[in-house]
Amino acid sequence: MQLPSSLQTLIAHLRRLPGVGQRTAERYAFQLLQWPAEQQQKLAEALKQLHHTVQSCTACGCWSEQPLCAVCSSDRRNRQMLCVVAQPRDVFAFEQTRAFEGLYHVLGGLLSPMERKGPESIGVERLKQRLALLGTQEVILALDTTLEGDATALFLKRELEALGCRVSRLAFGLPMGSSLEYVDGGTLSRALAGRQQLV
Amino acid sequence: MQLPSSLQTLIAHLRRLPGVGQRTAERYAFQLLQWPAEQQQKLAEALKQLHHTVQSCTACGCWSEQPLCAVCSSDRRNRQMLCVVAQPRDVFAFEQTRAFEGLYHVLGGLLSPMERKGPESIGVERLKQRLALLGTQEVILALDTTLEGDATALFLKRELEALGCRVSRLAFGLPMGSSLEYVDGGTLSRALAGRQQLV
Repeated sequence: MQLPSSLQTLIAHLRRLPGVGQRTAERYAFQLLQWPAEQQQKLAEALKQLHHTVQSCTACGCWSEQPLCAVCSSDRRNRQMLCVVAQPRDVFAFEQTRAFEGLYHVLGGLLSPMERKGPESIGVERLKQRLALLGTQEVILALDTTLEGDATALFLKRELEALGCRVSRLAFGLPMGSSLEYVDGGTLSRALAGRQQLV
Repeated sequence: MQLPSSLQTLIAHLRRLPGVGQRTAERYAFQLLQWPAEQQQKLAEALKQLHHTVQSCTACGCWSEQPLCAVCSSDRRNRQMLCVVAQPRDVFAFEQTRAFEGLYHVLGGLLSPMERKGPESIGVERLKQRLALLGTQEVILALDTTLEGDATALFLKRELEALGCRVSRLAFGLPMGSSLEYVDGGTLSRALAGRQQLV
């Protein structure tokens, strides 16, 4: 006997979630089956609504339920600083820290020759136009410390410095709470090179 | 800036899945947001359909899209053997092994005084009636090796042996592929007590 076909369908869909294999998808599906019908409907409804309610902010490209997101429409943000991130989720990671007062710009991806993603895929022209419009003084590149992130940072540095912007990138170094024993060599050498004088 | 409220709602729902905390629910929600709208709708539809299409088999209590599941309606199964499990998912675990030819019976839970789950919660009377109807000769208790599983097995053994059934339970012992180094003492002593002569 096989699982009922509607369960198999559900499992096939759930397997598309990140890091979810057959066993986990089954566990989720079995649990979902035991939810009260009302809860199932609510989750289904939340999924159905997703595409209608969550759009991209027309200015920064982050997720928003309004044409302009809360950051872009606020008059309390420092418009001289622009934090450039790859994905909308990165914006919310920064917002949770409450450590940044400027504006954001979402590239929507990183340069990746392997996946044939060139400059147009990250909307360089859109970024340049926005910088001109805002009169931004400093661009902070908050990109992954991967090959793609490094390539994108290098590319953007050249493009944006030509416009007269100051371009910085997030510091490399030890993550908080890390033990030297487990830190990789690449991180160690970057942390050494970026050492700061204690005052 | 906070996440759009429709995303927050979705995350709150996803957190109810087993083993899913805030971070994982966020990852799932972010991924779901990036799915094509069509895929989102299909998953939502699969969820909506769940309650309508998946019912309980009227005989064994397993999940089924028909009033009688494929096992109960088959005439190739050995009706002299009844495998008693706690949850519908356990049935499919056995079916995947193709090692059992008899019928199943789903209790829907285990005895648990802590959660005030007594004999009526596992439908003992329904099980007895089914045994009488089938003329079952052997009942195999395939229950968790936990306190609740042990209590349920002991209780069912007494009740069913009084009806003249032979009652067995799955073997205790080493799981396949295990190393003695990592096997707990309880399992080791049960494996020793249940040792079998090599032939």
